[in-house]
Formats: sequence, structure tokens, C-alpha cells
Amino acid sequence: MNFSSKLLQHAVEEFGRLPGIGNKTALRLVLHLLKQSDQEVSRFTQAIDQLKEKIQYCQECYNISDEPICEICRSIKRDKSTICVVEDTRDVMAIENTNQYQGVYHVLGGLISPMDGIGPSDLKIEGLLERLRKGEVKEVILALSATMEGDTTIFYLYRKLREFDVEVSTIARGIAFGGELEYVDEITLGRSILTRVPYERNSSWK
Amino acid sequence: MNFSSKLLQHAVEEFGRLPGIGNKTALRLVLHLLKQSDQEVSRFTQAIDQLKEKIQYCQECYNISDEPICEICRSIKRDKSTICVVEDTRDVMAIENTNQYQGVYHVLGGLISPMDGIGPSDLKIEGLLERLRKGEVKEVILALSATMEGDTTIFYLYRKLREFDVEVSTIARGIAFGGELEYVDEITLGRSILTRVPYERNSSWK
Repeated sequence: MNFSSKLLQHAVEEFGRLPGIGNKTALRLVLHLLKQSDQEVSRFTQAIDQLKEKIQYCQECYNISDEPICEICRSIKRDKSTICVVEDTRDVMAIENTNQYQGVYHVLGGLISPMDGIGPSDLKIEGLLERLRKGEVKEVILALSATMEGDTTIFYLYRKLREFDVEVSTIARGIAFGGELEYVDEITLGRSILTRVPYERNSSWK
Repeated sequence: MNFSSKLLQHAVEEFGRLPGIGNKTALRLVLHLLKQSDQEVSRFTQAIDQLKEKIQYCQECYNISDEPICEICRSIKRDKSTICVVEDTRDVMAIENTNQYQGVYHVLGGLISPMDGIGPSDLKIEGLLERLRKGEVKEVILALSATMEGDTTIFYLYRKLREFDVEVSTIARGIAFGGELEYVDEITLGRSILTRVPYERNSSWK
């Protein structure tokens, strides 16, 4: 792109570094910001600067929090003997939205991915083992993405968790609700037959 | 969405105000920024703050520029007797990329759009008329989008420009190169028949 201004070019390049934002989208966003008032633009940049500056992570579960211990870890209603291990805070939000889980979380902050240079030491795995050493945890649920990185991380964690007296489970994989059999990929379909469950457990007719 | 942090929520809401960025995308972008180093994040916000603070518009054509008069208006190679009127700086970049235009530009900064509360006085129309009053301009090309707002603006400008001794033209509308007849909408196809041009003019076989 031929920019008429270096300042404009610089701002567009910075926006273009964000994931999923190409050059054309970046330019559209920057031109949109240029049309806003000074107050609106500084509110935008201050929100980001403040987040980056003041962000805290819960000392228990490493979820993003405004306090040293997050609301979920502080709550007396949550079952502290069950830990659900997730990749990041988006997964916590997604699971919380289901209203199906009463335990606590552990946020890894990523998945093992040799391609991206992310190894086990880059994740909050030691913090998880520390929590298990206290001996109060009975079950660890590995709720990670059904991807290569997710599977690698599950395998690594499983070997670490075997040393403890805890039950280790992974969330069920299979056909999504509303999914039509003929469009399901072979691996999912094959696995869903192998890991079939008794009708009573899977049915919502109780 | 249930955010675990007010700071996070605030940053996501600010990102979500940008055009075409929904809540989920905003959250992904904010979490991406959180993973970057402090330097990278402040480089991002500073690029935006500096752009907003120091941005200048060319005093001749109102294009975004780092100097009082932009490079195109300063260039002795450009034909100052032809002005191409466009909506914003993206259109200048698009036309410059074609390498087909040697005149200068006039950036309106928007299009007349009663729905969005944008009237003629919100655009740089007075500046255009001022340039015409100097008497050096022979042709004004209206290169605006083929939308309702574009057509409204063209109609408004055309009535204003009639008072001057200039030729007024609009860019050609018709079937795009590579376009197949059967997929072209009726209005475009109908108009392209009515505004047909002699073979020699439209052909790239010379």
C-alpha cells in the first residue's frame, strides 16, 4: 500500500499485527478511529494501556482477575475438590455460560505447541501440580481443544497427574447437538462409536 | 459475556466499538495483546495516539498528510487542471495503485448520508469550490461509490459544479473485468447497454 502519511502507515501496520486483521481491515479501523473524537480515541488506547498495566492473574487458578484471588476461587459455593484445566480465560467464560459446572478452574495460559515454541515450562503446569500436592483435589477434568496441541497437552498432563491420587477425565468428544451424521468427519464418528455411552447417561429425557 | 475482570471487560468493549469487530473477536484481540510484551502493547497504543494527535490534512486536497501540502499536490508532474473527487484516503490509494491517473485529488471526507446525519456541510465541498474559483481547473472527475450515498453526493456536487466553467465527469460504471454477464445485476447490465462505448475506446487491443 502507498500511504500518504508515515503516521497513518505506522498505525495501520500496528493494527495489522493483530490476529485475523489484514492490511485493508487495519486501514478501515484506523480511519474509523480518526473520525472519532479525541476523547473516544484516548478512551480506547487508555483501556488497553490500563489493562496491560494493571492486569492480575488469580494466584490460585491463574485466570484473569482484578483481585489476587478470583471470584470463582473465593466462592464458598464452588467445589474445590474438582479442577477443570483449560487453555485460557475464554474457555472459563464458555464453561461458566453452560451453568453445568460447580468446581474450580486452572488456566494453563496456552497449549504445548512445539511449532510455536511453546513448551510445558511456558504453561502454568507447576502451579497445577502445587495445588494437587495439597491433597484436597479428587478429580481433574482436562477441558482442552480437540486439536493436535490440545491432545499433546492432555498426554503430557496425564503422565504428570498419574503420580497423584486423583481421577483424571477429559470432556466428552463426539457429535455436537444438532449435528447430522452424514456431515460428521470420520475420526469423530469412529471415536463416538468406540466411546459410546449407555442411553440413560446421554439422554436429556430423564 | 461474563468477564472475570472489569479491566478486561472495558478493553473488550472498546475494541467491540470498532466497525466489523464483534464481542468474540474483540476478546480474541485483547487476549492477544495481553500476551505481547509491554513494549509491543505501548507501541500499538502510541501509534494510535500519535496518529490522532499529529495527523494533518493537506490544505489543498484534504488528503491525510504529514505535511501542510501533500506529496501529490506538491508534485510538478501532476496535472493541476484535473481534480478527482473521492470519499476518503483509501480511494486515493486505490486510484494511485492503478497508475492511470496523473491529475490531483480532492478528498471529501465522507458522503452525504441523511441516515447517518451527514449533510453537505460536513464534507469538504466548500474547499473544492474554492479551488475551482481560482479558475485553473478544467475537469472534475467524480469518483464516488456506486451506492445511494455516492449517487446523492454526485447529484449535489453536479448542481454546485454547473456554476463553474469545468467539465464534470463520473467514472465509468459497468461490468467489471472478468465479470460474467449472467451474474451481473439487472441495473448494472441495463445501464451498461445504455452507456455503451465504441469498441475502439473500451478495447485493450490497440
